[in-house]
Amino acid sequence: MLGEAAAPLGIDLLVSDPTPDAPAAPVARDQVVGAFDDEATIRELGERADVLTFEIELADPDALERVREETGTPVHPHPETLRTIQDKLVQKRRLQDAGVPVPEFRAVDSADDLGAALDDLGYPAMLKAREGGYDGRGNVPVENPADVESAFAAIDGPAMVEAFVDFERELAVMGCLGDGEVDTFPVTETIHEEEILRRTVSPARAPPAVSERAREVARDVLDVMEGRGVYGIELFETSDGDILLNEIAPRPHNSGHWTVEGCHTSQFEQHLRAVTGLPLGTTERRCPTASANLLGDVDERQKARLHGVEELLERDRSALHWYGKREVYRLRKMGHVTLPGDGDADPGALVRSVREAVRPLTFRN
Amino acid sequence: MLGEAAAPLGIDLLVSDPTPDAPAAPVARDQVVGAFDDEATIRELGERADVLTFEIELADPDALERVREETGTPVHPHPETLRTIQDKLVQKRRLQDAGVPVPEFRAVDSADDLGAALDDLGYPAMLKAREGGYDGRGNVPVENPADVESAFAAIDGPAMVEAFVDFERELAVMGCLGDGEVDTFPVTETIHEEEILRRTVSPARAPPAVSERAREVARDVLDVMEGRGVYGIELFETSDGDILLNEIAPRPHNSGHWTVEGCHTSQFEQHLRAVTGLPLGTTERRCPTASANLLGDVDERQKARLHGVEELLERDRSALHWYGKREVYRLRKMGHVTLPGDGDADPGALVRSVREAVRPLTFRN
Repeated sequence: MLGEAAAPLGIDLLVSDPTPDAPAAPVARDQVVGAFDDEATIRELGERADVLTFEIELADPDALERVREETGTPVHPHPETLRTIQDKLVQKRRLQDAGVPVPEFRAVDSADDLGAALDDLGYPAMLKAREGGYDGRGNVPVENPADVESAFAAIDGPAMVEAFVDFERELAVMGCLGDGEVDTFPVTETIHEEEILRRTVSPARAPPAVSERAREVARDVLDVMEGRGVYGIELFETSDGDILLNEIAPRPHNSGHWTVEGCHTSQFEQHLRAVTGLPLGTTERRCPTASANLLGDVDERQKARLHGVEELLERDRSALHWYGKREVYRLRKMGHVTLPGDGDADPGALVRSVREAVRPLTFRN
Repeated sequence: MLGEAAAPLGIDLLVSDPTPDAPAAPVARDQVVGAFDDEATIRELGERADVLTFEIELADPDALERVREETGTPVHPHPETLRTIQDKLVQKRRLQDAGVPVPEFRAVDSADDLGAALDDLGYPAMLKAREGGYDGRGNVPVENPADVESAFAAIDGPAMVEAFVDFERELAVMGCLGDGEVDTFPVTETIHEEEILRRTVSPARAPPAVSERAREVARDVLDVMEGRGVYGIELFETSDGDILLNEIAPRPHNSGHWTVEGCHTSQFEQHLRAVTGLPLGTTERRCPTASANLLGDVDERQKARLHGVEELLERDRSALHWYGKREVYRLRKMGHVTLPGDGDADPGALVRSVREAVRPLTFRN
């Protein structure tokens, strides 16, 4: 989606991906085949590009810093930001120190640590590997003291535990750091199942004061971030109407995909504007907009094939975004569908419609 | 722009272009290097693709027909439609026979023919080469009898002459032929200077009855067209409020570029849906929308370089579409800028704003 946004701006996008002819290749100027953390690959990008960015947390901040020093090519966001975010404990500490409201948490290096922490925080709680988690991988719920041993064994490494948040809704704000500019997109309501994002809708069905507070917290988060770009800022709206920070992604984020149709500037164009030092675009919402992820519907990993497009496209305004991934596996994000509503559309009805719209789509070969 | 629309629909776009690494290459799956009318190139496309389409009138209808027969790959629109449209005289006769209102015209094969025709049609008039015209090339105005000899000498080949239309406005309608479906996009007002499209705005500043009549004429035109796809239908609104057909382009057209931001379905997505047999998308306009072309500002052909982007992008909602052409020459279409307005925006004010917005952009190296 960055590639689709780059061409009209006159920006040549050069991508790295370990898979030859990766999904991004058809919409990028060129691809360097190599692992996300392979320094030779990053060096080649640094030598050929005017600016480096990343849109996956598997990027290697040390390699990015060295390449920046060797080639003089700027890296946005700052590799230090990536390093902070990669370690969930460091991330939370840093944000807490800056006054950002976060759920209660403790560092945990053993089952004993975990038991002691939960004597304090109470049950249930969420144990998280400090590094490498994604889409719920690396997160283990701890329901009661009997779970402590097995939960820690499942992580078996540096971890943190977080008090369970009795949330009313999950929200997200795409934050934007430009060249001397700070902005936020309108608040998105995010709907997860099994810790994987299923649907979004903006405006969120939260009271206006809560949405306003969410953007305020997002701005406080951006104060801590170094380097230009867009940031996916995931939040909890508690049952008391407070906002707590959940997690940050230093890149365009699934919760902001709706901006392609729903805002005048998409998060992808905004990221490109930010990292290249162009002025940020307006974050104004064009209309209430919902989206639904297309998730792998198979048990066994297999070649992917998209079925049901005719039925989807018969629904007015349904916008398909197929990612072109060659293989499908259970719950893999294969694409998404966006549904823009009229100016006075009800967000609840819109999110139900988009859920209905994607029902005919299947991906098994 | 077809490439930008193809990827999210899961459509692999294979393009042919005589220039290696053509502007479309970064957003297409692959490019076959070859002239638009080179049969070996078209055959390779036909062998590799599920459906063939064209978006330039320089395509060769005979070659397309042969390749269709040899490879069994369907071609949309029908090559016969392309053949009819390529010859402006045949095009006009065909449409006139079908009851589509056209300006008065005569076939002209010599200066004597031209003089005789204009004794009948009157002066001024427009002499047009039957084939190969584009952006005003191949069109010669004939102001008075003294111009007849020199005007015909400038064409020096099969031609037609058309009575001058005292038009109030130029309008355009993008027509859509799907699989058993017919639709039209909302009417666009087109503003030409030196016979080259400069700006568009939709809704047009024409009375509602005139816009309605324009869509009606467009539907009559579509009745004559064979094969699926979108068609750019250029019209005159006469000073009496009548609609006359000017010309047809059997492809996405400059007058419909505003649909990327201005409609839920862009003309590019619509063309892809049509030629692949997917259901057509809604042609509903999202909001009043203007566009301005970026035209070559140099006298000597030279390497192109885009300047002034910062100033453009500081204006909220201005959407840049740079075409990535390597070279610029006088009045070459280098890109366009779209400006969506609020629901109640005044089309006149919008078109003035977009004209202002593109002023800082220059393309000389």
